[in-house]
Amino acid sequence: MSDAPIGVFDSGVGGLTVLKALAGELPGEQFIYLGDTARLPYGTKSPETVSRYAVQAAEALASYDIKALVVACNTASAASLPAIREKLKGMPVIGVIEPGADAACRVSKTGNIAVIATEATVRGGAYQEAIQRLRPDARVSARATQLFVALAEEGMHEGPIAESVARHYLTSLFALPGAPSGAGAAPSALVPGGAVPAVPDTLVLGCTHFPMLAGAIRAAIGTRVRIVDSAATTAKAVRDRLGSLLRASPARRSSVRFLATDSPERFARVGSRFLGQTIAPSDVELIDL
Amino acid sequence: MSDAPIGVFDSGVGGLTVLKALAGELPGEQFIYLGDTARLPYGTKSPETVSRYAVQAAEALASYDIKALVVACNTASAASLPAIREKLKGMPVIGVIEPGADAACRVSKTGNIAVIATEATVRGGAYQEAIQRLRPDARVSARATQLFVALAEEGMHEGPIAESVARHYLTSLFALPGAPSGAGAAPSALVPGGAVPAVPDTLVLGCTHFPMLAGAIRAAIGTRVRIVDSAATTAKAVRDRLGSLLRASPARRSSVRFLATDSPERFARVGSRFLGQTIAPSDVELIDL
Repeated sequence: MSDAPIGVFDSGVGGLTVLKALAGELPGEQFIYLGDTARLPYGTKSPETVSRYAVQAAEALASYDIKALVVACNTASAASLPAIREKLKGMPVIGVIEPGADAACRVSKTGNIAVIATEATVRGGAYQEAIQRLRPDARVSARATQLFVALAEEGMHEGPIAESVARHYLTSLFALPGAPSGAGAAPSALVPGGAVPAVPDTLVLGCTHFPMLAGAIRAAIGTRVRIVDSAATTAKAVRDRLGSLLRASPARRSSVRFLATDSPERFARVGSRFLGQTIAPSDVELIDL
Repeated sequence: MSDAPIGVFDSGVGGLTVLKALAGELPGEQFIYLGDTARLPYGTKSPETVSRYAVQAAEALASYDIKALVVACNTASAASLPAIREKLKGMPVIGVIEPGADAACRVSKTGNIAVIATEATVRGGAYQEAIQRLRPDARVSARATQLFVALAEEGMHEGPIAESVARHYLTSLFALPGAPSGAGAAPSALVPGGAVPAVPDTLVLGCTHFPMLAGAIRAAIGTRVRIVDSAATTAKAVRDRLGSLLRASPARRSSVRFLATDSPERFARVGSRFLGQTIAPSDVELIDL
């Protein structure tokens, strides 16, 4: 059983940032990565649709005799973990939201935490709930930063345009110079008791595309804010959770098998940037869900 | 038969720019608009997948007893018109590419025409072929400007960021100041005989989202270039094509029924901007394809 692969699922190529962290944290493991590229993005879809698609993808990965499933997509984690666990009874299923929320609660000094994510993730409130469950005194503000997804996919994740977009989204969230007055209370701020929040000291990148934009985000918000990238924290959570299910002698290098529901060529081209190493189109198998 | 509605299909809300033009050109007609919002965007998908989805959508619209179908999506028009016509035997099916290509050939003085569109439309080469079929001396250069879609959907279609993105994409296509030398020959330029092309005098907006960005595009390329928006030209083509199938006495106002495959709330919110008038979420029917 410990020789079985670990399934990794995302709506597209964003989850490759999580796969990269997993391969670093769990040397010698085999991975099967499925990107549902025919139906991406999930981030603008309703929770019902996301959950239906994610369950189909999880069942497809389960048919490859995986020992565990990592849902490497914030939107799918927010919408579908209970439904996936119900389908894959007994199999460890790890999402990216709990590990990210946990890391944010640990690194934040003030408990004032900002989350940026897709529309669907923000609207669903999963990060806000997960953070406040772990740290009831936390003040969480969240903002959908949908254009970051397109910038990352388009390879425009750094430079003046990416930095302008980062300022556009983050100025009011962090009350940066140029923000309208009273802008500390972002549109979807959840502030118990209605107190005016101080500026967040921690920013959660609540979408697997966003680590690509870390430089532009850092340029916008400065160096004082702690940035939590759920890829690294999820990889550690997977290691802790799997324990004895991991390979005993990880002498071999990690190996990955790539599956996609559309265009292996595009998966390889865009995905190589996210993984940080070249994927050949011929290494990507086209499957139908 | 002339009282039957006209079906209008798009991958999402972009086609509402075409619907708006149709309603203006064909007063008194009834329209049924279907946005396949659960599976958008089509612009990054393979032609096979786009064609499969578009045929399903066309069949769904045909079940509403429409008298004609307008494929108000450039990507779907490029990939699926023959397959849709095969399925809907005998029904007039009008796409947006031929009308746009025709208009470009008529307004261009030099025959040097630039096309901007989604990745899938550019890669498929449908505009390039349609233009050169109508005007064999034309020189066509095409560029995918994928981020325009996200900017339009996000409501960031005007202002400094939209203008920066427009300059990013269009500088080399139009050899604008700041373009690298020799940049007149854009990446996907089709130049018969290998001659160095002069700067295009006409720009085709080959995606139904792009009319939203006309101001930012104009700011980037200046006032001399003619911009062809296929929405208006398609509406005229539909009027010419349908002729006696149109209502004889168009005294009534146009009416529209909206169908979407996901989130009526988002369709209404984002779609209102594209249609230029408010759509209520309760006016959008959720259907499954």
